[in-house]
Amino acid sequence: MNFIQIQEALEKKKGNVAVRGWIYRIRKLKDKIFIVLRDSSEIIQCVIKNEEMIKVADKLLMESSLEIEGEIYSEPRAPTKYEIDVKKLIVVHASEDFPINKDQSPEFLADNRHLWLRSRKMTSILKIRSTVLEAMREHWRKKGFYEYHSPMFMGMQAEGGSTLFKVDYYGKPVYLSQTWQLHAEPAIFALEKIFTIQPAFRAEKSKTSRHLSELWMAEMEAAWEGFEYLQDDAEEMIKHVVKKVLADNKDELKILERDISKLEPVLKKKFPRMTYDDSLKILAKHDMKLEWGKDLRTFEEDKLSELYDTPIIITKYPKVVKAFYMREDPKNSKVVLGFDVIAPEHYGEIVGASERETDIKKLKKNLEEQGEDPKKYEFYFDTRRYGSVPHGGYGAGVERIISWICGLDNIKDAIAFPRTMTRWTP
Amino acid sequence: MNFIQIQEALEKKKGNVAVRGWIYRIRKLKDKIFIVLRDSSEIIQCVIKNEEMIKVADKLLMESSLEIEGEIYSEPRAPTKYEIDVKKLIVVHASEDFPINKDQSPEFLADNRHLWLRSRKMTSILKIRSTVLEAMREHWRKKGFYEYHSPMFMGMQAEGGSTLFKVDYYGKPVYLSQTWQLHAEPAIFALEKIFTIQPAFRAEKSKTSRHLSELWMAEMEAAWEGFEYLQDDAEEMIKHVVKKVLADNKDELKILERDISKLEPVLKKKFPRMTYDDSLKILAKHDMKLEWGKDLRTFEEDKLSELYDTPIIITKYPKVVKAFYMREDPKNSKVVLGFDVIAPEHYGEIVGASERETDIKKLKKNLEEQGEDPKKYEFYFDTRRYGSVPHGGYGAGVERIISWICGLDNIKDAIAFPRTMTRWTP
Repeated sequence: MNFIQIQEALEKKKGNVAVRGWIYRIRKLKDKIFIVLRDSSEIIQCVIKNEEMIKVADKLLMESSLEIEGEIYSEPRAPTKYEIDVKKLIVVHASEDFPINKDQSPEFLADNRHLWLRSRKMTSILKIRSTVLEAMREHWRKKGFYEYHSPMFMGMQAEGGSTLFKVDYYGKPVYLSQTWQLHAEPAIFALEKIFTIQPAFRAEKSKTSRHLSELWMAEMEAAWEGFEYLQDDAEEMIKHVVKKVLADNKDELKILERDISKLEPVLKKKFPRMTYDDSLKILAKHDMKLEWGKDLRTFEEDKLSELYDTPIIITKYPKVVKAFYMREDPKNSKVVLGFDVIAPEHYGEIVGASERETDIKKLKKNLEEQGEDPKKYEFYFDTRRYGSVPHGGYGAGVERIISWICGLDNIKDAIAFPRTMTRWTP
Repeated sequence: MNFIQIQEALEKKKGNVAVRGWIYRIRKLKDKIFIVLRDSSEIIQCVIKNEEMIKVADKLLMESSLEIEGEIYSEPRAPTKYEIDVKKLIVVHASEDFPINKDQSPEFLADNRHLWLRSRKMTSILKIRSTVLEAMREHWRKKGFYEYHSPMFMGMQAEGGSTLFKVDYYGKPVYLSQTWQLHAEPAIFALEKIFTIQPAFRAEKSKTSRHLSELWMAEMEAAWEGFEYLQDDAEEMIKHVVKKVLADNKDELKILERDISKLEPVLKKKFPRMTYDDSLKILAKHDMKLEWGKDLRTFEEDKLSELYDTPIIITKYPKVVKAFYMREDPKNSKVVLGFDVIAPEHYGEIVGASERETDIKKLKKNLEEQGEDPKKYEFYFDTRRYGSVPHGGYGAGVERIISWICGLDNIKDAIAFPRTMTRWTP
């Protein structure tokens, strides 16, 4: 048999087709059996009328793998409007009783994640994830960026020791990377504009629906570029990702019951840009008082996001709440030339960005103020000693962006096998 | 100034141009100063004749960052055949004395890896690496594969415990992934055809020029496909990668002094395919006797690779030397339906592949024979319980392939910051 995907069979609309996949639903009547078959592309109803075949199919359970040949024709009552009259049926593997049905607890689904991936929900999310990854790369490659990988094993820490995972490295302690920052900046002196999509590790003790212990970060760094360029690039990147998902994953968004009218403004409107100071004023108008110098918390970000139907860009945060390598605003030494992008609909921070500080004295002072030992950062300071240039970059949380685009309740569903404080299997 | 890349300036050939970059070489004469400027695209000679500018340039050291405006014209004696007569010079940053010059030890270069990345050698390799990554993805995406990520944190081990890195995971031991295998197979029941390029970790105690503790693996897994398909796909993938590098990275291969006549046969010829048994016969003819059942060692792979000018595919290895999940040959229970791809020119194994065993009893037996506890693999066996299908896949070592294509002496140069038993900084 010359197999085609179910999607392709549906497009053929008539004639003989051969498809293969798994039983999504099976309904056994006296004189016929209806099987809804799924493959990675779609589902299709198949009807078995032949007596011998009915005997075979009668024993089959959900998730059994089949090869089917038959005639396809229009059938408005079928779930995808076409049906196959089965002429030939081969049981590739008769499934045992599949443990997942409709009324399982989230904990059971997590324990059986390796099986739950087959659900139409998870399959749709994983397809959108695949699109998101490619869209991000497309965006940067079009602009001449090189793909560059930083190491996962770090002899030292970059963003605060409390959230680092320690590895037994041939008997010595090393740490898992939280960001590519320290090892990305040296490479802009070779490649100028670089990006990556790679894992990052954060020993977050929080159990919120927004945090993973193992996540994927899309990061970029560019020589000769600054504050304005970074805002433009982050906005363009996000727009390109949303555009591509809307174009390529209509069916998946439908399966996820995502209201795409909430995504469409992202393409049409310029993202609002406001300073941290502005954001405090807006919050005050909504009876949320935040002391200057405190970082925006989840419920403040959420309040701001409610006021707009696109992501918003909040700039010039207080220096004290941001990473040591963010550049001090030359006009105001209390804030940095950095910004966060906050997603709509309460999806929180999806991008963190800044121009980078090039003044070694300021870098050392920032580290000391954060309780770090600047001596461990000598190799990093070298990037400011030998032909330093203005530069900057940002990191985007891949799972955060997928959660928002898919409209997920929990970030855990944005990745196949989520790892959190309480979950590291299967 | 409206800056363009040096490559673009060279293509312009005449007229006024503005470029920026770093001093690659500087030669100070009495009445003029020659600066060879480099950016990520190329190098160009710039000549300074103006008295005031000479005073400024006279103090400059290698690697200083500059903005330059001037007239470009043909100059056959210049390294890239054109020269800029500098009209305007801005020193962005006057470099300190750059620690790397021509006669440094490999150890010194490794300690200063963050600066050595700027060398024309490392910059060229990193550009080729960027091409290789994209070419691999292009190959699989064109065939309808989805990009899919497996977790780095593993509650259990996949390929032998002795080479696992242990992580302190909120007080519990977990391990870093050596392959995506166990978490990839469950996903083919959702997406059918998947690939990834992601880090893998191996606590290799060897100090050879072919091993890294942190490497990147390009892996694919496909439902409904078997032994022949996998050989074809691996060959196509490798051909596509070599083709794209030859097309896009001519200049970089030249800088690396790579003899591209050694790469060209890869595109023109079908890769020889031989069984392990055949390979033993060939080795015997060259006075290399290997007992049946032993794995090919480096020097045997090297001998075989000398006999061909393309990669070779060696199939049906003894079961005892291969991973537990490789499918037993139905015609010979002593060998597996798997293969390795061996690169030419002594670059060793670049791909390891197989159809997967679907018989749970055999999987358990294989695990037991390797001293593993099958109980830990229950979630994996589930992929054979609920609609099992024939499937297979392979893993390609990204750094191995880059080493071979670039003709490198050591795999460490195929990655920006190599991690080995003796090296985890900077």
